[in-house]
Amino acid sequence: QIDSARLWGSIHETAQFGATAKGGVRRLTLSAEDKQVRDWFRKACEEAGLEVHTDALGSQFGLRKGRDMSKLAVGIGSHLDTQPTGGKYDGILGTLGALEVIRTLNDAGIETEAPICVVNWTNEEGSRFAPAMMASAAYVGDFTTDDILSRKDIEGTTVGQALDSIGYRGEKPVGFQKLGCFVELHIEQGPILEAEGKTIGVVDSGQGVLWYDGKISGFESHAGSTPMPLRRDALATLSEIVLAMEAIAKKHGPNAVGTIGEAVIANPSRNVIPGEIAFTMDCRSADGAIMDALDRDLRAAIAEIAARRKVEVKIDLVWRKPPTHFDPKLIAAVENAAKTLGYSSRRITSGAGHDACNLNTIMPAAMVFVPCKDGISHNELEDATQPDCAAGTNVLMHTVLAIAGV
Amino acid sequence: QIDSARLWGSIHETAQFGATAKGGVRRLTLSAEDKQVRDWFRKACEEAGLEVHTDALGSQFGLRKGRDMSKLAVGIGSHLDTQPTGGKYDGILGTLGALEVIRTLNDAGIETEAPICVVNWTNEEGSRFAPAMMASAAYVGDFTTDDILSRKDIEGTTVGQALDSIGYRGEKPVGFQKLGCFVELHIEQGPILEAEGKTIGVVDSGQGVLWYDGKISGFESHAGSTPMPLRRDALATLSEIVLAMEAIAKKHGPNAVGTIGEAVIANPSRNVIPGEIAFTMDCRSADGAIMDALDRDLRAAIAEIAARRKVEVKIDLVWRKPPTHFDPKLIAAVENAAKTLGYSSRRITSGAGHDACNLNTIMPAAMVFVPCKDGISHNELEDATQPDCAAGTNVLMHTVLAIAGV
Ligand SMILES: NC(=O)NCCC(=O)O
Ligand SMILES: NC(=O)NCCC(=O)O
Repeated sequence: QIDSARLWGSIHETAQFGATAKGGVRRLTLSAEDKQVRDWFRKACEEAGLEVHTDALGSQFGLRKGRDMSKLAVGIGSHLDTQPTGGKYDGILGTLGALEVIRTLNDAGIETEAPICVVNWTNEEGSRFAPAMMASAAYVGDFTTDDILSRKDIEGTTVGQALDSIGYRGEKPVGFQKLGCFVELHIEQGPILEAEGKTIGVVDSGQGVLWYDGKISGFESHAGSTPMPLRRDALATLSEIVLAMEAIAKKHGPNAVGTIGEAVIANPSRNVIPGEIAFTMDCRSADGAIMDALDRDLRAAIAEIAARRKVEVKIDLVWRKPPTHFDPKLIAAVENAAKTLGYSSRRITSGAGHDACNLNTIMPAAMVFVPCKDGISHNELEDATQPDCAAGTNVLMHTVLAIAGV
Repeated sequence: QIDSARLWGSIHETAQFGATAKGGVRRLTLSAEDKQVRDWFRKACEEAGLEVHTDALGSQFGLRKGRDMSKLAVGIGSHLDTQPTGGKYDGILGTLGALEVIRTLNDAGIETEAPICVVNWTNEEGSRFAPAMMASAAYVGDFTTDDILSRKDIEGTTVGQALDSIGYRGEKPVGFQKLGCFVELHIEQGPILEAEGKTIGVVDSGQGVLWYDGKISGFESHAGSTPMPLRRDALATLSEIVLAMEAIAKKHGPNAVGTIGEAVIANPSRNVIPGEIAFTMDCRSADGAIMDALDRDLRAAIAEIAARRKVEVKIDLVWRKPPTHFDPKLIAAVENAAKTLGYSSRRITSGAGHDACNLNTIMPAAMVFVPCKDGISHNELEDATQPDCAAGTNVLMHTVLAIAGV
């Protein structure tokens, strides 16, 4: 059994780095607050006897030796970056839970056959730089390191510049640390476990994701003197797109969602009809065929709206992540650990994307979910209980022991 | 006849202060560019022999003596500030046309009975500080000087601070320069004169304006893991409000318009359902009863949308300007000047608000419109012809001579 109080202490100690007034965390990837938590994490890993290295995209790897160093390491971990209005658990539980596993094994004097590697992946959230789960995507070869280094945030700062500004462009090439498999602990970020009174979610699949960048070009004109029928209003166009997206996701539901999270009017003014808007779209489904249907319906709806309103709408698909089906053997290992420990559990699909979904494309991967309050995440009010966090960490530890061998 | 080439030269010389790549002007009120054009204007007025003073809100007054200084001055002018993506004529034609009238009278050695006062009003546009036509509203007593000085722009800078930062907080109290009447020359900012092939618009009325500040409070949550039916999406709410506003304005049309020009998502992120949005609304009609109906319908629609979507929507009416009915004698004087000069004309309603609408509440006022290309305004492509600008300035001059007495 892990040390529940110590885990809880780590979570709340690091929550100071970017703490918000409403009790959440604002720790955008590669920000000053991210540097603070990274420094804390490196020190904690070193104190736990791990050999810590940082790769060229800033991901941190802490290795615990195994008896048989010819075996590939069992990867565990998650991310320490948050949304602009994020919570204390999303990513953090999985990373500090992995650290807690190491600390517990150390205290108990337990050696494993295969080495264990604790990982903090850079930019899982994807709110500062697209795509989400950026560093693990580069790790599995979906993008080159140089491509990712040149991605820009909204202010034009590149990933490379941001890494340098906090001193976290690591000395190791991406992929230097070979892993044999990866297990990630995470809060559910949805309402199912709580509603059903289950402690552990055994994640068997994950939704696919479509991310688009959009731009509407209408025509700026005077709010007072331009008759309604002559307008080419970019905001009215966006409004129709938002509602069309909502209707399309509902039509393909319950296994589909669609969101417009960002929309910026260029040169806004109270008495000017908006002429230009940049926006983003996020569509998801666990079913590849539904993802295709979402894409098709959305493009058709946007084309119709644009033609009718005589405005130009451009959309670019900037990221397509297919649905994830986790490794059956690892799923069974997680399920078995939960059972052995006496926790109630159920199979579950992840609505969110996770680094484990990327890793699953080149190695066996799996995930452990614990409930979060009212299913709320990406919100400062995100919450989870200490016993649930401890239960998830125990399941993670027993899964790792089963895989790594004692 | 005024000097058409000299007028055209002034317009294009001052267009350098804030010139944009697309041929427009970005000269927000009380900005560094506004200081440049104010310095130019003061110097030009002084060189034309005017006695120039600035009031406590930065409005500039250039007085040309009359034979009978016991008579109240005839006010002419407009504004030199622009929208963020504004044109070269909106306000500028009226201000530099007033200067051109003075220069022409000087050249011809014409004295008038009553004095003439050229005015450049501060913040007519209302895009940096609300309300629009701010300084003339204070002049007529709709707001106190202190109230206006404390209004803030989006960065939190007050009018008082902005005035000080460019050295234009004048030595004279607001209202120091008494005026007997006011005549304003302006581009139409709508399509009617051009469509009908008329040179002069004799403005007999102006639309009333309702300005609101709005705020939507929904709930931020995860774009991937929050099922569609559980969302409290602030952007979907705004989208319904935008389309409701459009439908309501159309329903009450053609004599009504409604626009949402600003909308800002708090802490936007691609994979977060928007939780909070601040926005503004602008509704107008030349008919007071329709203005009331717009307000009523809009509030009812917003209440229904908010309740159905389980979000909170607050709206504050921050400005209500009733419809304007200009002075019949001055309207006749403008019409007569156009006729005498041989220009085709028609009566017209102003879709936009103007300083003359404020002045009309305490003194006789009137306006002269000239056509602008395709009715486009509040856009960098705003355009007008040299002959039309000259014709409008001639009508302004002859109207002034008729009122001031030669
Ligand atoms: N777990 C999580 O919230 N990841 C962020 C990426 C996404 O799913 O949008
Ligand atoms: N003339 C003009 O564009 N004024 C700006 C104020 C408004 O009507 O919105």
